[in-house]
Amino acid sequence: MKKIGVVLSGCGVRDGSEIHEAVFALLAIDRNGAEAVCMAPNADFPETNHLTMQETGNKRNALVEAARIARGNIRDISEVQAADLDAVVLPGGFGAVKNLCDFAVKGAGATVHPEVARLLREMVTAGKPIGAICIAPAVVAMVLGKDKAPTLTIGNDAGTAAEIEKTGARHQECPVTEFVVDRTNKIVSTPAYMLAHRISETYEGIDKCVKEVIALL
Amino acid sequence: MKKIGVVLSGCGVRDGSEIHEAVFALLAIDRNGAEAVCMAPNADFPETNHLTMQETGNKRNALVEAARIARGNIRDISEVQAADLDAVVLPGGFGAVKNLCDFAVKGAGATVHPEVARLLREMVTAGKPIGAICIAPAVVAMVLGKDKAPTLTIGNDAGTAAEIEKTGARHQECPVTEFVVDRTNKIVSTPAYMLAHRISETYEGIDKCVKEVIALL
Repeated sequence: MKKIGVVLSGCGVRDGSEIHEAVFALLAIDRNGAEAVCMAPNADFPETNHLTMQETGNKRNALVEAARIARGNIRDISEVQAADLDAVVLPGGFGAVKNLCDFAVKGAGATVHPEVARLLREMVTAGKPIGAICIAPAVVAMVLGKDKAPTLTIGNDAGTAAEIEKTGARHQECPVTEFVVDRTNKIVSTPAYMLAHRISETYEGIDKCVKEVIALL
Repeated sequence: MKKIGVVLSGCGVRDGSEIHEAVFALLAIDRNGAEAVCMAPNADFPETNHLTMQETGNKRNALVEAARIARGNIRDISEVQAADLDAVVLPGGFGAVKNLCDFAVKGAGATVHPEVARLLREMVTAGKPIGAICIAPAVVAMVLGKDKAPTLTIGNDAGTAAEIEKTGARHQECPVTEFVVDRTNKIVSTPAYMLAHRISETYEGIDKCVKEVIALL
């Protein structure tokens, strides 16, 4: 059975992985006959109250919170190598650009969590596909933009696309229920909640994105 | 557009709503052309670390945590009446039997959160359908077992089924990808993670359960 890494960043759109996106990635992996390998950084990040949408001043651990989405079946990303996986998928949510990197604050000047950067570089070197959902293509651009000039999408937000292109990556506009595929670098991306007004749009785009990742194996 | 209440109990299988089940309920509601109205009790409950599966000794607020699944679009259940809704769906997870009621500890002797009990009674009185997923049929049994003797399923766990039958409800075994419908009381139930070994099984059962709830409108 093919193993697809799912890089989570917590549990909740404002301070972790967008929950719907993460769950739909897990569903698509299973429905396509592959096995999900969930992982997250073992590190603390600021907590947002999702009722008030205000930061609380407290912190939560991304691995411990992401374990909620993974029903406890999750690994510290520092223990996962590309050799363990056939592909990797990154759901979105602000956690992708606050915890996996700090693109949300620093744009193209962001720093990527070292274990996330390591794993993505290993995957590309091994010729293994990467799927990136919602804002997560920004993480891929930060790691691979300069060396690989990957083509990817975050939908159609001009400001975000401009920051992504500063890394050397190329941004391509894309509707919510479709995906962009860079066949040279084996990178598949879909806008999800960067554009979606309905949960079913998010589902449709992610389902197609994950299917394409698996088709590239 | 038909409005389907989704009664959440937190965010995470061990101390709140089972996340996959809740997301699949939201997806099925949207795909069937209805609108989800998320709600949860505004009350604190013990927190479980989902990496270690140990209770932490801290508490979390069910409404604030459930807001993560609802992306902030959620109401305090005490502010929701049956008149606002066309149907209601209860996802599972231990939160259903720890926070919506205390069936996990007390079995058939459980007490139901007063606002949850009120809303379910209002729904039945108004002849509006109720969908119950995973262990959530236990909540329905606690509220309606004595007066309505509803037929429902939690899969095939004999001990749990026996506790449920003590309330006056009737338990019917059911495979994970199917549902049980009580047409007299308009109650639809499906086993989900009471039986599922794969996320896709959970999805399939919940999709059918919600479709049936909407068909009963």
